[in-house]
Amino acid sequence: MLGVCYYPEHWDESRWETDARRMRELGITFVRIGEFAWSRLEPKRGEFQFEWLDRAMDVLAKAGLKIVLGTPTATPPKWLVDECPDIIPYDKDGNPRGFGSRRHYTFSSQTWWQESARIVEIVAKRYGKHPGLVGWQTDNEYGCHDTIRSWGPEDLKAFKQWLRLRYQTPDKLNEAWGSVFWSMELGSFDEVALPNLTVTEPNPAARLDFWRFQSDQVAAYDKMQCDIIRKHSPDRWITHNFMGFILDFDHFKVADNLDLASWDSYPIGFVEKFPFSEAERNRWAETSHPDIAPFHHDLYRGVGRGRFWVMEQQPGPVNWAPWNPVPKPGMVRLWTWEALAHGAEVVSYFRWRQAMFAQEQMHAGLNLAGLDELSPGGLEAKQVAEELAALGSLPETGKAQVALVFDYQSYWTTNIQPQAKDFRYEELCFRWYEAARRLGLDVDFVRPGGSVEGYPLVLVPCMTEIDGPAQDALDKADGVVLIGARSGSRDRNFKLPENLPPGPIAEMTGNRVYQVSTLRPGVTHSVSGQVTGEGTRWREYLQTSAEIVATFDNGDAALTRKGKVHYLACWPDEALLTATMKLAALEACLAMTEVPDHIRLRRRGDIVFVFNYGSEDWEAPQGVDFLLGERTVKPQAVAAWRAQ
Amino acid sequence: MLGVCYYPEHWDESRWETDARRMRELGITFVRIGEFAWSRLEPKRGEFQFEWLDRAMDVLAKAGLKIVLGTPTATPPKWLVDECPDIIPYDKDGNPRGFGSRRHYTFSSQTWWQESARIVEIVAKRYGKHPGLVGWQTDNEYGCHDTIRSWGPEDLKAFKQWLRLRYQTPDKLNEAWGSVFWSMELGSFDEVALPNLTVTEPNPAARLDFWRFQSDQVAAYDKMQCDIIRKHSPDRWITHNFMGFILDFDHFKVADNLDLASWDSYPIGFVEKFPFSEAERNRWAETSHPDIAPFHHDLYRGVGRGRFWVMEQQPGPVNWAPWNPVPKPGMVRLWTWEALAHGAEVVSYFRWRQAMFAQEQMHAGLNLAGLDELSPGGLEAKQVAEELAALGSLPETGKAQVALVFDYQSYWTTNIQPQAKDFRYEELCFRWYEAARRLGLDVDFVRPGGSVEGYPLVLVPCMTEIDGPAQDALDKADGVVLIGARSGSRDRNFKLPENLPPGPIAEMTGNRVYQVSTLRPGVTHSVSGQVTGEGTRWREYLQTSAEIVATFDNGDAALTRKGKVHYLACWPDEALLTATMKLAALEACLAMTEVPDHIRLRRRGDIVFVFNYGSEDWEAPQGVDFLLGERTVKPQAVAAWRAQ
Amino acid sequence: MLGVCYYPEHWDESRWETDARRMRELGITFVRIGEFAWSRLEPKRGEFQFEWLDRAMDVLAKAGLKIVLGTPTATPPKWLVDECPDIIPYDKDGNPRGFGSRRHYTFSSQTWWQESARIVEIVAKRYGKHPGLVGWQTDNEYGCHDTIRSWGPEDLKAFKQWLRLRYQTPDKLNEAWGSVFWSMELGSFDEVALPNLTVTEPNPAARLDFWRFQSDQVAAYDKMQCDIIRKHSPDRWITHNFMGFILDFDHFKVADNLDLASWDSYPIGFVEKFPFSEAERNRWAETSHPDIAPFHHDLYRGVGRGRFWVMEQQPGPVNWAPWNPVPKPGMVRLWTWEALAHGAEVVSYFRWRQAMFAQEQMHAGLNLAGLDELSPGGLEAKQVAEELAALGSLPETGKAQVALVFDYQSYWTTNIQPQAKDFRYEELCFRWYEAARRLGLDVDFVRPGGSVEGYPLVLVPCMTEIDGPAQDALDKADGVVLIGARSGSRDRNFKLPENLPPGPIAEMTGNRVYQVSTLRPGVTHSVSGQVTGEGTRWREYLQTSAEIVATFDNGDAALTRKGKVHYLACWPDEALLTATMKLAALEACLAMTEVPDHIRLRRRGDIVFVFNYGSEDWEAPQGVDFLLGERTVKPQAVAAWRAQ
Ligand SMILES: [Zn+2]
Ligand SMILES: [Zn+2]
Ligand SMILES: [Zn+2]
Repeated sequence: MLGVCYYPEHWDESRWETDARRMRELGITFVRIGEFAWSRLEPKRGEFQFEWLDRAMDVLAKAGLKIVLGTPTATPPKWLVDECPDIIPYDKDGNPRGFGSRRHYTFSSQTWWQESARIVEIVAKRYGKHPGLVGWQTDNEYGCHDTIRSWGPEDLKAFKQWLRLRYQTPDKLNEAWGSVFWSMELGSFDEVALPNLTVTEPNPAARLDFWRFQSDQVAAYDKMQCDIIRKHSPDRWITHNFMGFILDFDHFKVADNLDLASWDSYPIGFVEKFPFSEAERNRWAETSHPDIAPFHHDLYRGVGRGRFWVMEQQPGPVNWAPWNPVPKPGMVRLWTWEALAHGAEVVSYFRWRQAMFAQEQMHAGLNLAGLDELSPGGLEAKQVAEELAALGSLPETGKAQVALVFDYQSYWTTNIQPQAKDFRYEELCFRWYEAARRLGLDVDFVRPGGSVEGYPLVLVPCMTEIDGPAQDALDKADGVVLIGARSGSRDRNFKLPENLPPGPIAEMTGNRVYQVSTLRPGVTHSVSGQVTGEGTRWREYLQTSAEIVATFDNGDAALTRKGKVHYLACWPDEALLTATMKLAALEACLAMTEVPDHIRLRRRGDIVFVFNYGSEDWEAPQGVDFLLGERTVKPQAVAAWRAQ
Repeated sequence: MLGVCYYPEHWDESRWETDARRMRELGITFVRIGEFAWSRLEPKRGEFQFEWLDRAMDVLAKAGLKIVLGTPTATPPKWLVDECPDIIPYDKDGNPRGFGSRRHYTFSSQTWWQESARIVEIVAKRYGKHPGLVGWQTDNEYGCHDTIRSWGPEDLKAFKQWLRLRYQTPDKLNEAWGSVFWSMELGSFDEVALPNLTVTEPNPAARLDFWRFQSDQVAAYDKMQCDIIRKHSPDRWITHNFMGFILDFDHFKVADNLDLASWDSYPIGFVEKFPFSEAERNRWAETSHPDIAPFHHDLYRGVGRGRFWVMEQQPGPVNWAPWNPVPKPGMVRLWTWEALAHGAEVVSYFRWRQAMFAQEQMHAGLNLAGLDELSPGGLEAKQVAEELAALGSLPETGKAQVALVFDYQSYWTTNIQPQAKDFRYEELCFRWYEAARRLGLDVDFVRPGGSVEGYPLVLVPCMTEIDGPAQDALDKADGVVLIGARSGSRDRNFKLPENLPPGPIAEMTGNRVYQVSTLRPGVTHSVSGQVTGEGTRWREYLQTSAEIVATFDNGDAALTRKGKVHYLACWPDEALLTATMKLAALEACLAMTEVPDHIRLRRRGDIVFVFNYGSEDWEAPQGVDFLLGERTVKPQAVAAWRAQ
Repeated sequence: MLGVCYYPEHWDESRWETDARRMRELGITFVRIGEFAWSRLEPKRGEFQFEWLDRAMDVLAKAGLKIVLGTPTATPPKWLVDECPDIIPYDKDGNPRGFGSRRHYTFSSQTWWQESARIVEIVAKRYGKHPGLVGWQTDNEYGCHDTIRSWGPEDLKAFKQWLRLRYQTPDKLNEAWGSVFWSMELGSFDEVALPNLTVTEPNPAARLDFWRFQSDQVAAYDKMQCDIIRKHSPDRWITHNFMGFILDFDHFKVADNLDLASWDSYPIGFVEKFPFSEAERNRWAETSHPDIAPFHHDLYRGVGRGRFWVMEQQPGPVNWAPWNPVPKPGMVRLWTWEALAHGAEVVSYFRWRQAMFAQEQMHAGLNLAGLDELSPGGLEAKQVAEELAALGSLPETGKAQVALVFDYQSYWTTNIQPQAKDFRYEELCFRWYEAARRLGLDVDFVRPGGSVEGYPLVLVPCMTEIDGPAQDALDKADGVVLIGARSGSRDRNFKLPENLPPGPIAEMTGNRVYQVSTLRPGVTHSVSGQVTGEGTRWREYLQTSAEIVATFDNGDAALTRKGKVHYLACWPDEALLTATMKLAALEACLAMTEVPDHIRLRRRGDIVFVFNYGSEDWEAPQGVDFLLGERTVKPQAVAAWRAQ
């Protein structure tokens, strides 16, 4: 089903009815509102203006739209910031990040929690049982604009408290952090300093704890909102709209509070943000890379324990990337169908109509700026709505062939101590995902410790700390397991394992890493054997009791196999990664359909979808009945048929 | 005529007479002094030392030199800064920019205005009627070193006041800025914050107002100085020495205070500052690009309402660019003649003699450091003086064939909201100017709303806000008009026009822009038809009732014509720009002389000048009598003849 | 002999004896300890815990190890920083650099001097006469992490005092700095400001004085420690472990306090720090460039007046460079032999065993992390120990054929006022050194004013200020002298010399520099004559009475000769530098052995060593008896024989 984001407060009230009617005509079912409206709801402390929102919700509900209401905490109004300056976040250099845009609060501020609880309760009480209301969104895009970590006095206060609870005594903290190094020992928790503004790099264990602390705060803050909402708004679900490639907090833990996950899908904007090569950026500038949106669909399906929405779908050019191209004709439709193919319950466009003013006035909507006239993206959304109506309801999303273990903490760990400047956890996972998808495989994302039973192939690109549950889950894997370098390389306290990496999985893999080399972009180490290619960036020196599948030039093991468990001792280049993935999939007896770089397949239940991101046709298999499209899949086209 | 910048306070008094005599011998008429001498004039508050300047002016005047005196406000002395710390500017990160170089004041400080008025009045009173004095320079290079905008407490105070006057009520401000977006509404003017240090980008309308405010302050500050000078120094003119490619304030508005404009011409330094390609930078490293100085001559002739000087002419290598090459032999002469050809009344070299100490000791002068011995640049200046004497007075500068509408606000608008990272207004105007000049055409710069009547060809590379006067002026154009993309795209309050861009000129152009794509450097959109080439960076999707002169690949209009008004819906590459310029010039029935990239022509009255920036000869037309040079124009040579 | 750095406080006391025994078994003689142990020695003010160190020293001494004890001042503990916040340094932007890593103090703080004196005295008293103790290391790596210059209130206070002593009156300071320029004159020393946070560049003379002041402070601070140590610890030597390519203070002056110099040799880390080309970085990624370590060996032999150690030798991959490759097999042995060949008395590895925790846990040791098991580097160290034992004691290091005058102040001067963005003093010296070494020559480093008598060839790549002693030393040179551009270009007060550069050596060279051109990377000026190549970056225009050996394209002198004194008027490219070096060496009648870029020769007494950094064999001369290795010198191999 389709949805849309709407800002009644941006338009004259006289236009609301037309807007609601035209939404329904287009085929829209859900409308999200309210998430930035605090200054309209409470222009001064305690002086509330609900009438406009009452009327807006009534108009929308009357038109038959189902309302998702956002809590307005992403944009505290100026009077509140002036009154309570302790809610303001600080950047890593110690400078305050002030009012004038959004997300100008720190999760560490007690004042902010009280104010958030106050406004959420007021809004939840007033609208929680509104007949048009079906669900809630907490806040908006946690972490967007680097807003998870703040480095101010409130943060230090809260961090000290978090450490006190975790470690009980300074001695235990000193032991955990290895504070004896460089005389960093602390005599009391009062002596704790934030791990920034140091002369050279601060203690990595201290940094990891600071990152964990801030991540924990997000989950707790979100839970606080959810608890209030649930109290006052029975029978409505709650979600949060996550933002892609924001890894500063653990999305799995926040989603534990939620009924379903949602995410904001801006595939083209990400082309400039993700570390693609310039050639890739040029190639995918006007369509996005064919794994950018799917990677997140699959991630958030995992985060949402099977349930997710696209809460904001790019409907045309946006405003916030360095360059903002118009998507190629067909892409808005393609992205929508693709989200549905990956299991999205709803695809909701951002936004109904392009704004006339302020920061996002260059962001397309389903309608042209200020007008009751569909934009090119709006016309494509209309087409999807018609196709969806013709197709009827979609089947349930089943289990994929491949599980990929995705671990926020491994991002933190490798980011805190990269050892190779270009060791980027998110890039590694993306490339492994891409390699699987190029073989026509579907992928589920699993959190560390989540069950991987029943998956023919399990991918662990990198899991730095493998705790008890994570180890148990790997032990219970009944498929082929492919584990990447740097896994098991740190314990809970950022220490090296006493038996050297891969620590807890030494036995499982048969390996011991006695040395690590990190390689600048111009230097690679060749691998040959059952797979060939180049090791780059990170290369481990193994002692192994496992079978050696491929070796480095000097004869050392590069890829090992012990039973069903494979271990790849480097960051692979494309050739090595593809060969390794294929070898693992073959061992897992998976049927593969190799596709060119611009084609992707995806199954939802018994329906097979194909998406063409490129500029050349692709021929779908013969002898099937097409539910969507036709055998020759044109550029930017979609096709679908029932698997036989 | 020629001038020179001189610092008697840098040299022992015993040398002044020799210096003055040698200036006259070289052929210099004007000498500028005093603009950095505050600490010598007033070493402690109220303790003045005028005697040295009295003597210096007498020596210079006695030698027959005409004196231009600078007000010393660009360098407030340390005792003043210590006494009045509120004059110190703040950078965008909120840090003070302290004493130790120059321009360490904010235009927002009331204390600074009082102190400026005090010292200007004292100097104007003492020297305003000195017989040697012919004119004044206010301050020095407003805006140099990014000193227009300051972000401190004084600035916030003054900004609030400016907004109060402009908007009267917070509601009007909220409506103008679209503050409802992201709950940015303000309850009172006291709640206004500076548009910096926000979590993500601040409101663009707020930023534009802050930029306007700071620009207005410069004009008002300059007027304050001019009013005082005029009171005490009758019959002397006033100028300011503008710095090239500084666009943070509206030079037209400052020049409304002045009798004539002047600018500081450092052609080679700009090679590193302007966004040239590396290939262009290498090619022009030792000569400068052949449009850098002319662009500014023509701009400041416009700013000065027909009258301008070069107040500081580079006479050799300078000290402030990343690399500072010696200009190729002949370039100092070439630049001087070129300035005169573009209508400069005086070319004044910076500086008489290279300093022995301090920040600019690597900056060449007309004399070697510390010596009474001409530098290579000094010898070239001498040659110009002799040639000028031989030639007699130059004719009046006439009207050019081409008018280019240059708009500081469009720079601000596109800089605040680039949408394409490389959308640089100054680069766009420069490339349009270059294209016209490569066809041998002369160009006048016109401010928005300035009359373009009588120009066969009018260029509007980009005018984001087209207000009433600007629209009127375009309506009255009687030549061919070529308007570039993004024109008419914003109203006074940074809002999109209700009829979509190009807003007020929708009727005139026949166009409506319903979508905009911005393209990264590796991506272009091909254009073909009566002109061909590539659209880059910014591409508009038009609905048009005009004639379609060229289209994009998908058939959409790229260049339209409605009567004499052409509209180019993209940022053109060189091929497309050249073809479009040629087509427009042909329609305007202009006689063109296409020149290679290193040759430029320029007419002053009936004299045609040619300048060779390259390393190959160029053949001037046959059958003319050469006033300067000869038919074969050698590298770095100048030739001139009377048009027939 | 060999040594190792050891941190007993990082390991359980039960392991100390095994560690000590295994050190001896490996062949280690010296062990450095204690330099980061303040928080373990004094966990709270006045509460000392010496027992653990007592026991550790006893265990080490009993095993036969000779102990070097570091003063623990590089890491003031948190309680001290909290108690005395005025010891904290400030960065150039004026922000404090806090606790959490190391070197978080400013040399300007009086409190810090008192606290340093206190802890040094306590430690020196307790351990100064310990029978196992043979020497001291003051502090650790002065200047590492940009910690020489601090920009806080304590620094301003101390700078004012330093200026008062130097200049006596503000007038003299104003005269020396040329403060009349831009009204920078000061009425009293109280008006002095730090030369940072200015609107544009601050006065270069002020900056140079600030740099001198900070350099002087380091030497004085080090002397304070040495004086205390000498009082309480008779018959022990003192050293400091300098860090390579840190040029912010004058190492010669600090070493005047010391008995011998030492330095910390991390050859591979420097590949990313030194301004090599990308091609060079790739080529030398896993071995280092063959002049990086030797350059420093020779420098610190000079700094140590003939005596130096390598205090920390890289034994495998490190943790702090952008990429940290494993050295190629053999390199740890090669570096060790190379250090000895260059005259090192001891090569001491960093560290005994890889740490399990904290910032340096990815830094290899001689043993694997946490284990009693030699790492690959440990095995190579063992091999060296055995070879050393077989070889017996090495001969004395003699005088080299070439003297290179190395001047910290010239780095400061050219860094403060580069004029060409890529004018890097250290790169210039390195390239001159490399050119000499490629001819098979040995090099001694000499400080400005140091005697160069007896050297067949004297190199002065650049000496900006040539004071009396420096001029005398050059006058007394009896070999060929090759002087580079920019020498003699500034006087003591950063002023241009009155006779223009090269000032004091105008007579000696026969030259006058009347103009300087600096050239961006894409622009060069060709040189031909007795030498050919390209002038880059910095090119001088000479008037000369000397013989012209080579000229620029325009006929100007590029290389001149007056008697034995040569002057090279540009920054030479590799071809020009090699040709010039060869010409000078030929005139000096030096026997040269040209070697490929990956081979280096070095004599210690009568032993000739050869080192192969490349991937191709090299053939040593026939007919010699090899003390080490064999005639075919394999990649990463070492050979040595007695010169005949
Ligand atoms: Zn959003
Ligand atoms: Zn100037
Ligand atoms: Zn070290």
